[in-house]
Amino acid sequence: MNFELTKEFIDELRQRIEQKDEQGAHKMIEDLHAADIADVYDELNIQEARFIHIMLDSEKAADVLIELEQDDRERFLEVLPGDVIAKQFIDKLDSDDAADVLGELSGEKREEVLQYVQNLEQAGDIVDLLNYDEHSAGGLMAKELITVNENWNITTCLREMRKQAEDINEIYYVYVVDDEQKLKGTLSLKRLLLTPSTAKIKDIINTDVISVKTETPSEEVANIMDKYDLVALPVIDPLGRLVGRITIDDVVDVIREEAGRDYQMVSGITEKVEASDNTFQLTRARIPWLFIGLIGGIFGAQIIGMYEHDLGIYPEMAFFIPLIAAMGGNVGVQSSSIIVQSLAYNTLGIGGIGKKLLKELAVASINGLILSGIMLGYNFIAHDSFALTLTVSSALFAVIIFASSFGTFVPLLLDKLKIDPALATGPFITTVNDIMGLFIYLMIGRTLYAVL
Amino acid sequence: MNFELTKEFIDELRQRIEQKDEQGAHKMIEDLHAADIADVYDELNIQEARFIHIMLDSEKAADVLIELEQDDRERFLEVLPGDVIAKQFIDKLDSDDAADVLGELSGEKREEVLQYVQNLEQAGDIVDLLNYDEHSAGGLMAKELITVNENWNITTCLREMRKQAEDINEIYYVYVVDDEQKLKGTLSLKRLLLTPSTAKIKDIINTDVISVKTETPSEEVANIMDKYDLVALPVIDPLGRLVGRITIDDVVDVIREEAGRDYQMVSGITEKVEASDNTFQLTRARIPWLFIGLIGGIFGAQIIGMYEHDLGIYPEMAFFIPLIAAMGGNVGVQSSSIIVQSLAYNTLGIGGIGKKLLKELAVASINGLILSGIMLGYNFIAHDSFALTLTVSSALFAVIIFASSFGTFVPLLLDKLKIDPALATGPFITTVNDIMGLFIYLMIGRTLYAVL
Repeated sequence: MNFELTKEFIDELRQRIEQKDEQGAHKMIEDLHAADIADVYDELNIQEARFIHIMLDSEKAADVLIELEQDDRERFLEVLPGDVIAKQFIDKLDSDDAADVLGELSGEKREEVLQYVQNLEQAGDIVDLLNYDEHSAGGLMAKELITVNENWNITTCLREMRKQAEDINEIYYVYVVDDEQKLKGTLSLKRLLLTPSTAKIKDIINTDVISVKTETPSEEVANIMDKYDLVALPVIDPLGRLVGRITIDDVVDVIREEAGRDYQMVSGITEKVEASDNTFQLTRARIPWLFIGLIGGIFGAQIIGMYEHDLGIYPEMAFFIPLIAAMGGNVGVQSSSIIVQSLAYNTLGIGGIGKKLLKELAVASINGLILSGIMLGYNFIAHDSFALTLTVSSALFAVIIFASSFGTFVPLLLDKLKIDPALATGPFITTVNDIMGLFIYLMIGRTLYAVL
Repeated sequence: MNFELTKEFIDELRQRIEQKDEQGAHKMIEDLHAADIADVYDELNIQEARFIHIMLDSEKAADVLIELEQDDRERFLEVLPGDVIAKQFIDKLDSDDAADVLGELSGEKREEVLQYVQNLEQAGDIVDLLNYDEHSAGGLMAKELITVNENWNITTCLREMRKQAEDINEIYYVYVVDDEQKLKGTLSLKRLLLTPSTAKIKDIINTDVISVKTETPSEEVANIMDKYDLVALPVIDPLGRLVGRITIDDVVDVIREEAGRDYQMVSGITEKVEASDNTFQLTRARIPWLFIGLIGGIFGAQIIGMYEHDLGIYPEMAFFIPLIAAMGGNVGVQSSSIIVQSLAYNTLGIGGIGKKLLKELAVASINGLILSGIMLGYNFIAHDSFALTLTVSSALFAVIIFASSFGTFVPLLLDKLKIDPALATGPFITTVNDIMGLFIYLMIGRTLYAVL
């Protein structure tokens, strides 16, 4: 059952598609999981993928659609008429997946598709879900859930659950509500198995239930599910009424995306790309930060230009320009990324910006003393200019202190201003620290050379 | 129920602890979730935390222990005698958590604790689990699971499930085995609810089950559960016998740790630290890469030293040293992190290293042409030295090509050699590219200045 995608498999499949061998091609993929079929599509061109897709049974075809990357899905759907999309996909999907797919279509096409959705309840759920911000609990949740009334007994409860379960893929939790649909608690399937059937739901309910509001941001949803080890999380509206539930598999995607976005930022990449994307996508994701780095470099050139005369007399001062710039960049990236990670995972602890900066200054001072000390020793032996030796070490210390403070302060500030603090990692911090480092170094150099 | 940790809460709690107000302190925390209590401990010193801990009921006390950071837990346990650890913690925990806690103790202490474990089956399970590598499926799995025989009917099955369920916190899946304990499939709780009780398990079993072997690495477990949207994953031994199951909450931790590790690497941090860690931990995590950066800087200084004479004559060549170094660093980090992410999430696609390098060269050439073109325009206006203008642009192009290829090749090579490719991101790539960039720039500069 565990499938591994190989070049041989793809070659054979392509050959069958080319020969229009429908049966042969179908046989190769019919037993695969939807996620594996989506991986297969990634290696095919769109005509080949369509050839296979029309042979899948409609339940699986809909599942494969959900597993595709967003842009592949858009290309897939764009040529299909509205009624086919409605019948073959939207009717077969859970409400959250259906809303995600519809949300990607243009407004016009979306309305067309919605008209053709057979199941009116499903259509209503989807319209509801489309109203929520996609980065909120409302945007993540599905409407399919099993709810029972707190006043029922277990027999009634089981009967109702059977009825409701028909629309639902898998049951992890049963939610208990009162007559006004307000969430009162959860029912564990284990308790349900272990309790005599005359007992009331009220008596076996677990009221210790963690829930989120529809407007809770998805990062917070992820942190809550992770922290409390939850598999499903109920979502309530402002009146406390149960409106949906989020399952952990959707949140795993949020966690990966979030981690991926922070990783891209620190690497200087502006959009989600994978090594398998095309040259244009890869270039577009990479050039913006490189351009900003270039502007930074031009500023740096102008700063050095202001010291051209000094460099003409003391060319050895140029030796340590890359060292100072690199250390400023490295220290700044370290500081900012520790803060960004702690903000993301809510592990910053309590206490204000002042306290964080003070601790950072302590760390920076220790690092600065050690590294400047090493450079002092090295230059003392390697170079006979005392002015150079002193310039490098004192500039290195100053740059480390500056870069640490800046790298700590900026993300904290951005977070206070409700801007993504991850913007302050990677090339931005490196570029600013490069320029400031140069300035500090050359200024100290000019002063010390004049004095000594 | 949703708890938010505030400074006021901690201040009040500390005050009560100081006044030895056991009842008052207990009242503040008794209704909190174990994960929240662990967060409270983080803000207290160890005496204060112990004062609270002894007041918790033993089930919750054990759960809090699991939620603590590893080093806090070790400090907590180190003063307790073996029998207390066994009775208060190990007996109350799931086998996987119990094995994790025991695995952190010294060999001697571990044996002592194991002798006191009351439940002999639990003790046996723990000893089994301790044999597995902690970064494998065996190290992640728990032994508690519900298994039914394929030949039973539903009534027998439900009776047996009730018996087994007593030891288990929550049921997500029921596993079906044959007489030899070989995994045959899963039973959906939904099917169980919907099917008449005389049916055989065989008739409603889902045989399409994805499983992993005990030795499957934990990253692969995480990728499988994410890809197939699984909540629980059965683990089998080499004979195909069911030996345990992994739940998604454990895998979420793996995913976060893995993402965190890659993020640290690219930021130049050598161990897991949070902003709330102490100065010593923060310094220790940061100095190794800074030191390597420093060595790189010294090499850089020596390379520039070789061109001291040229710089004395053409000091304007120094202007663009930081630009070249920074661009090499930025491009290299971009290339390597795209490869590392694609390796981690298994989205590299099929095809060899050669194909990847060719595509990377295409991307690098486009970026290189654009950025060198901009610099050509800028320098043409801003500087009157044609030699400098040509040197900067051609060196920039060459550096971008080199840094891209190097940043793509090294992680792919490390991966082939079974070394963590993330090592090739961050300061390593930056440092190497800084040095190579300098060398390329100065060499081209000397040549062009001589010719023009």
